[in-house]
Amino acid sequence: MSDGAGGAPPSPVRRPADNPIKRKGFIMKKHSGLAGPGAIASATPAPVHEFVLLDSDKAPQNWSIDSRQLGIETDRPFSVSLRTLHGGRQEGVCLVDIDTGAMTITVVPTRGMNVLRAVAGDVRLGWDSPVGEVVNPAFIELGGRGGLGWLEGFNELVTRCGYEWVGHPGVDNGELLSLHGRLSNIPASRVVLSIDAKPPYGIRLRGELKEQAFKKIDFAIVSELSTEPGAQSFTLDDSLTNRGDYPREYQALYHNNFGTPLLEQGARFAAPVKQVSPFNERARGELDEWQSYRGPTEGYDETVYNLIPYGDALGDSLAVLHNRAGDRGVAVGFNIGQLPVFSLWKNTDTERQGYVTGLEPGTSFSYNRRYQRPLGLVPTIGPREQRHFQLSFTLLAGKADVEQALQRIDEIQDGRPTEVRETPLVDLSGA
Amino acid sequence: MSDGAGGAPPSPVRRPADNPIKRKGFIMKKHSGLAGPGAIASATPAPVHEFVLLDSDKAPQNWSIDSRQLGIETDRPFSVSLRTLHGGRQEGVCLVDIDTGAMTITVVPTRGMNVLRAVAGDVRLGWDSPVGEVVNPAFIELGGRGGLGWLEGFNELVTRCGYEWVGHPGVDNGELLSLHGRLSNIPASRVVLSIDAKPPYGIRLRGELKEQAFKKIDFAIVSELSTEPGAQSFTLDDSLTNRGDYPREYQALYHNNFGTPLLEQGARFAAPVKQVSPFNERARGELDEWQSYRGPTEGYDETVYNLIPYGDALGDSLAVLHNRAGDRGVAVGFNIGQLPVFSLWKNTDTERQGYVTGLEPGTSFSYNRRYQRPLGLVPTIGPREQRHFQLSFTLLAGKADVEQALQRIDEIQDGRPTEVRETPLVDLSGA
Amino acid sequence: MSDGAGGAPPSPVRRPADNPIKRKGFIMKKHSGLAGPGAIASATPAPVHEFVLLDSDKAPQNWSIDSRQLGIETDRPFSVSLRTLHGGRQEGVCLVDIDTGAMTITVVPTRGMNVLRAVAGDVRLGWDSPVGEVVNPAFIELGGRGGLGWLEGFNELVTRCGYEWVGHPGVDNGELLSLHGRLSNIPASRVVLSIDAKPPYGIRLRGELKEQAFKKIDFAIVSELSTEPGAQSFTLDDSLTNRGDYPREYQALYHNNFGTPLLEQGARFAAPVKQVSPFNERARGELDEWQSYRGPTEGYDETVYNLIPYGDALGDSLAVLHNRAGDRGVAVGFNIGQLPVFSLWKNTDTERQGYVTGLEPGTSFSYNRRYQRPLGLVPTIGPREQRHFQLSFTLLAGKADVEQALQRIDEIQDGRPTEVRETPLVDLSGA
Repeated sequence: MSDGAGGAPPSPVRRPADNPIKRKGFIMKKHSGLAGPGAIASATPAPVHEFVLLDSDKAPQNWSIDSRQLGIETDRPFSVSLRTLHGGRQEGVCLVDIDTGAMTITVVPTRGMNVLRAVAGDVRLGWDSPVGEVVNPAFIELGGRGGLGWLEGFNELVTRCGYEWVGHPGVDNGELLSLHGRLSNIPASRVVLSIDAKPPYGIRLRGELKEQAFKKIDFAIVSELSTEPGAQSFTLDDSLTNRGDYPREYQALYHNNFGTPLLEQGARFAAPVKQVSPFNERARGELDEWQSYRGPTEGYDETVYNLIPYGDALGDSLAVLHNRAGDRGVAVGFNIGQLPVFSLWKNTDTERQGYVTGLEPGTSFSYNRRYQRPLGLVPTIGPREQRHFQLSFTLLAGKADVEQALQRIDEIQDGRPTEVRETPLVDLSGA
Repeated sequence: MSDGAGGAPPSPVRRPADNPIKRKGFIMKKHSGLAGPGAIASATPAPVHEFVLLDSDKAPQNWSIDSRQLGIETDRPFSVSLRTLHGGRQEGVCLVDIDTGAMTITVVPTRGMNVLRAVAGDVRLGWDSPVGEVVNPAFIELGGRGGLGWLEGFNELVTRCGYEWVGHPGVDNGELLSLHGRLSNIPASRVVLSIDAKPPYGIRLRGELKEQAFKKIDFAIVSELSTEPGAQSFTLDDSLTNRGDYPREYQALYHNNFGTPLLEQGARFAAPVKQVSPFNERARGELDEWQSYRGPTEGYDETVYNLIPYGDALGDSLAVLHNRAGDRGVAVGFNIGQLPVFSLWKNTDTERQGYVTGLEPGTSFSYNRRYQRPLGLVPTIGPREQRHFQLSFTLLAGKADVEQALQRIDEIQDGRPTEVRETPLVDLSGA
Repeated sequence: MSDGAGGAPPSPVRRPADNPIKRKGFIMKKHSGLAGPGAIASATPAPVHEFVLLDSDKAPQNWSIDSRQLGIETDRPFSVSLRTLHGGRQEGVCLVDIDTGAMTITVVPTRGMNVLRAVAGDVRLGWDSPVGEVVNPAFIELGGRGGLGWLEGFNELVTRCGYEWVGHPGVDNGELLSLHGRLSNIPASRVVLSIDAKPPYGIRLRGELKEQAFKKIDFAIVSELSTEPGAQSFTLDDSLTNRGDYPREYQALYHNNFGTPLLEQGARFAAPVKQVSPFNERARGELDEWQSYRGPTEGYDETVYNLIPYGDALGDSLAVLHNRAGDRGVAVGFNIGQLPVFSLWKNTDTERQGYVTGLEPGTSFSYNRRYQRPLGLVPTIGPREQRHFQLSFTLLAGKADVEQALQRIDEIQDGRPTEVRETPLVDLSGA
């Protein structure tokens, strides 16, 4: 039980209201730092400031901490703040803003620890969705709109899809699966902020999520976002644990979404690619321009390309979106051992309809689950087993940064061929 | 983004808790006064007291203001108060009570700025629904009960239906449309109270609503209720804006509901009518008594009549419900340029089942949307276009008031004929 | 209206925040004491301490009271506390812990006054569901998972099913009925704690619930849990009132669930039984062992047996679950005049999948409602009629207690025969 009591009766003692954040002080903890996916965390423990922002006995309250208050002298003063939104369908939604001094990263504990946006100066990672509110899952019927209810809350930079399933709505095993699963609409049950007390003062925000239904599923998820003072990047380290006694199917897809200013007419996508194929007939018609972007285009809707990326010897891979001039971009790092396939979603419709592209590593593509089983893209997780999904997001702030990232992609590709497959992997013509 | 931050990182500064309402003082604003629908607002700006009751950074808190506190001397002291309901399915629901000194009007920001009731002495505009709570949309599954989940929260004087669709549940374009759309189950995201600082001290409550889903819809709604000290009337001025880049279908229907004491055996309905027809075969059988009401009748359920009203030269029209004695009633003003059709809903079942009639001007009738397209009753709204819907509600407190309103109806009818159509506009026999 | 205003305008006066619980002092009230089901309450009024824990104008706040504060001297000091859970899908859920001094009973007002667990020393009545959170109904889509959304919140000792329907999901009268009805997902609208001011200081927690939808249903439910200082038992007295003007179908089923330590390999079930039959073909295969339990069994899923219990001359009946050694158990008392049938749910799957048995008296079995009408198990309740459902839960703390309870069962059986019916009452083979 997570009501703070377990089998034993809870203490009726009330916490004093003037102690909003439990500062635990210098607790010894494993220091994970700002490691890239695939990297091995340091085994050296380090002193850490730890703050519980939300827990079963702790309501979220507006709060903030900064480097000065922690007695940390840095070139780049940093701060972390928690606030609650009110009104509309965002009533009660918590946001955590991590300002590294060089980038402000906004996390939404109430929406599955999704990352709303990351802003560095005049560059914004994220996009402008018609959905203006950060919607509390309490107001969303995922089964609404024929299983498309998820669209009523979709507006983040990082929207997690999974873990029971991902993909388009449709009936599988006699049940209507709603778009992209439940994960983004599960509020975090416990959120802890850790700040290393020693340079480089690594900042970590960890949220715990439960995806549970009697007889059906018992997934425990821990999602950790890491960054550090002065950084224009962050990493995600998500662990999925099957707490149950039976193997379960699962799927993961990181719906990472970018609009202006990176996305524009002539912007380009790059990744080390083993195979690319169109998601459907619509995308097939533009297969020759799959790596380049149009400007906002009336009536465009979307095209999607299914990629099988290459990784390096450790499985690490990288996808890059950069602007036309090649002097700004974003690099999304992932590991093909964890996330073996990749959806490139090109939604270059008008700005108000949603001008956005998704760089989406996953265990699976965006087809309904029933189509992905034959493709071998519905993995299982055994009892008590754990899976890790690690991603990095790095702002490429200048031409040199972009070029270096593209060079890294070339290194991973390492001269290996790219198969351009004309036919979609799934025949949706009869669907 | 309406999380109060836009693309820029938000200030972590907390608002002092002891400043619950931002009183902006004498701000110059366009003064709309208590204009009737179709009337043109005064262009003269006037000093206004303005209070933000709810916003993205402002939780609703119990609060009240009265004319004395504002330094206003009136024959009729007035007050406005905000309170939050607790327990049951009404946990967290906000109510705003506007007491004009002669009538208390209760608005529900949490339920789409619906008007719960308006009470003047022993006359109540509104009705007694079996639904006793003011239900928070978080607890309603609109898709439940085969698309009738809306019925679990239906109990207001003014229940807005729309704007994506109105009408009975059913599949249209492959999607199950739930009863009467989402609008009544969307909480207002920002609520502002304005009180003119000069006579007649117009009181306005404005709420902003968002009806949004990626790829589907981006409607912004501003709903403003106006009244003034001593009034036994109020007006609604709702604007619907299509913020998107594509034309969208929309529908509006104002489900204005009246029970006792106005509704009783022998009560009557009047309006200037061009055409009346029964909604279905059930209503056809009582077509000859479409303007009169039965007392509470066991097993009655409901009859519905579809009206096409006449308007005056400006399109203004009026519908009246009055009691048997003709000494009490209500007049609902609307404009046929905005709301060209009208549903008369006669639910004269038993008191506990719901003894109520609806005087419902709309763009559309209550059929499922798929039936209304062929009737030309599914209008579209272009990109960035706006539609206004203006209604007035006036208590008719005595015989003279009732007679004057009926005379106004005669003037609008102006001797023009009323077609009594025997056949329903839609053949539901195969439905 | 339960918004605290009825037809009259509410007073805008704010309650002082430092007065969280309205202590009404020594109010004269009917004293119902700790009566067993079927017993008649004393007609003698007694002084009572009464505390309103939750109401339309009263938000739940962490709070507690104990016997010392009440000036009550007992061998067993007792206390009652209220707390609110935060984070995850349990945000805003209220729990009431009643510590009798010998047992702590945890009630969940937010989930239909369900009883989460009752703990006495090292014995726990209740079970370990994979659902670890106490889930706020706002986050549950009952229609999700093909009507199995209820499973996302199922983890209580006493989970009430009903009252519009109970049973497995399926279409009845053209509507998809979701699993086990809505009752467990309706928050209590008013919760009052009463403590008798005279020995034996009876403790009662009463919650009011509304199951309402315009045209469909108007059920008012009052649920009262009673216990007393030092007790290792409690009773439930639920009343269901049809507030409407029409007779309505209803169903009730008390899903009373027990896991370890009472449930174990070799644990046994006993009750006075007139007829037992397997729920389905799966259960038929183990009919010969219907009264005994397996240990946690991989792949077991569940078997269900439909019982028709005997009652004594007053209709009182008793069901017992005890451990293998026969020195610990629980007795569930009920009345066959109120709850004429009984489902024995044996879910002896693995511990993490849910090792649990349900002792479930009801008006009905667990079939979809459409199957129970022909069995005569869908009763109706007339206008303004009331039904009472009374249950008692008693911990059997030693061999003598267990033997005494089994003896009581023998007395009720009174030598009458038990029909063991091989064929399920409902043929689900074509379902």
